[in-house]
Amino acid sequence: MRDLTRRLDLCSINTATLGHQAPIGPMIDAIARAGFGALAPWRRDLEGEEAAAVGRRIRDAGLAVSGYCRSTYLPAATRPERQAAIEDNKRAIDQAAAIGAPCFVFVVGGAPAGSRDLPGARRQVADGVAALLEHGRAAGVRLALEPLHPMYAADRACLNTLAQALDMAEAIEGPSAADPWIGVAADIYHIWWDPALCTQIARAGAAGRLLAYHVCDWLSPTRDMLLDRGMMGDGVVDLKAIRAMVESAGYSGAVEVEIFSAENWWRRPMAEVLAVCAERLQAVC
Amino acid sequence: MRDLTRRLDLCSINTATLGHQAPIGPMIDAIARAGFGALAPWRRDLEGEEAAAVGRRIRDAGLAVSGYCRSTYLPAATRPERQAAIEDNKRAIDQAAAIGAPCFVFVVGGAPAGSRDLPGARRQVADGVAALLEHGRAAGVRLALEPLHPMYAADRACLNTLAQALDMAEAIEGPSAADPWIGVAADIYHIWWDPALCTQIARAGAAGRLLAYHVCDWLSPTRDMLLDRGMMGDGVVDLKAIRAMVESAGYSGAVEVEIFSAENWWRRPMAEVLAVCAERLQAVC
Repeated sequence: MRDLTRRLDLCSINTATLGHQAPIGPMIDAIARAGFGALAPWRRDLEGEEAAAVGRRIRDAGLAVSGYCRSTYLPAATRPERQAAIEDNKRAIDQAAAIGAPCFVFVVGGAPAGSRDLPGARRQVADGVAALLEHGRAAGVRLALEPLHPMYAADRACLNTLAQALDMAEAIEGPSAADPWIGVAADIYHIWWDPALCTQIARAGAAGRLLAYHVCDWLSPTRDMLLDRGMMGDGVVDLKAIRAMVESAGYSGAVEVEIFSAENWWRRPMAEVLAVCAERLQAVC
Repeated sequence: MRDLTRRLDLCSINTATLGHQAPIGPMIDAIARAGFGALAPWRRDLEGEEAAAVGRRIRDAGLAVSGYCRSTYLPAATRPERQAAIEDNKRAIDQAAAIGAPCFVFVVGGAPAGSRDLPGARRQVADGVAALLEHGRAAGVRLALEPLHPMYAADRACLNTLAQALDMAEAIEGPSAADPWIGVAADIYHIWWDPALCTQIARAGAAGRLLAYHVCDWLSPTRDMLLDRGMMGDGVVDLKAIRAMVESAGYSGAVEVEIFSAENWWRRPMAEVLAVCAERLQAVC
């Protein structure tokens, strides 16, 4: 396992961690100034910006991009809506390429409002990802399926385990793609509880499908189902054990911090949040 | 699949659904009066009561018992605490036998406070269940492991999927026990999202390990992680599809309603809640 001490160059900040307080320019500068090696922007950060210019600013700051967040939900009640989501995701993949992101993160959506057809929603996700594969390959952007915690199965993502995401990737690309363009984003918030965690991380790594690794912590108790993620070290997750699994599976990418925390970290100044992330990444991750 | 129309005799009320507003006696009477065939009491309902007398009252009311809730958490920081939990669960199994419950429901607990060792907590659960197997068999009470939703992995149950519970049961009793005494309680609130739901329910049924089936609904949005379960039909779960799986796997026990709902159903009179349960069981389950 890599030693992260004085190696913030191996670490990335997902801009959601900073609570969307600042425009992308100042965020890039603050992340670079704090010594991190990369960042992962959200589409909202690029609104009103020219993607290629943002990409230049990132590179000029000496930063890499660890991923671009996130897909428009794929399941929808009608075929035209599903097609519109695919077109929107193509535009996002183009932006991902323009800023130099190696992967585009898929938060796939739940069943359409009023539907109880979870298996049907999952089939729509598979169809949508399949429809985007060639666009990703042509743009040089891998599709990172992010299984979300099962508590989001109804409204945010019907993709809920690494096994399910890998099954889907293999069903679309074939089980032994030599150069896979569909992989997974492994976020400990969503997967730390999974009894199959170790085997599925190993499976993802062996298949070359482990595209991103996100850290935060699970607070106990958790006070809000969406916006109460913890800073690394403040919760119950054995972060070093999971990073050991991820890296022994072959992952050599960034350790990306992604914390949604409306009542705590999002209320603090960017520089303070970045300093605490830097300290915790080196101490407990 | 069984038709539940005018077959409330196939249905059971878990007393938690009634918000613990009344003592066990009036609950038994109300559940019987509403036409249900069974109930599932909690240990708190028996506090200050003599278990055998409660059992007689249940039988005299013409009711069966579909299960007895629930275990004292098994993982603990020290060996004496773990042993105390086992002894306490033995006493509960004796109560289960005294009231005529066919199974005792295990909510197994999370890792001890301050621990980040989830795999270790899971080993402690397996050890605790193994230590209780003979007691259950001698009392004629099967041990129903209830996988809880992964959002409870930290604080309530580190047993989070049917596959994990069945793996544990098989590890303790052997994979092909002819007369298994360890099985699972399948509660749709906890498992509806599971991509492996269909295969694991079939596996449980084939092994004779499907001991209980609990229904409610998953509300979207869910406003509280513990006490905002929905009445059947008010949420996003395809209840008929899941009952079809459960019954085609061989389950012929009660359909048990278990709803934790502090802000809605627990504020309503018992008779109203029972009437709505009766209606929804026949209409949407």
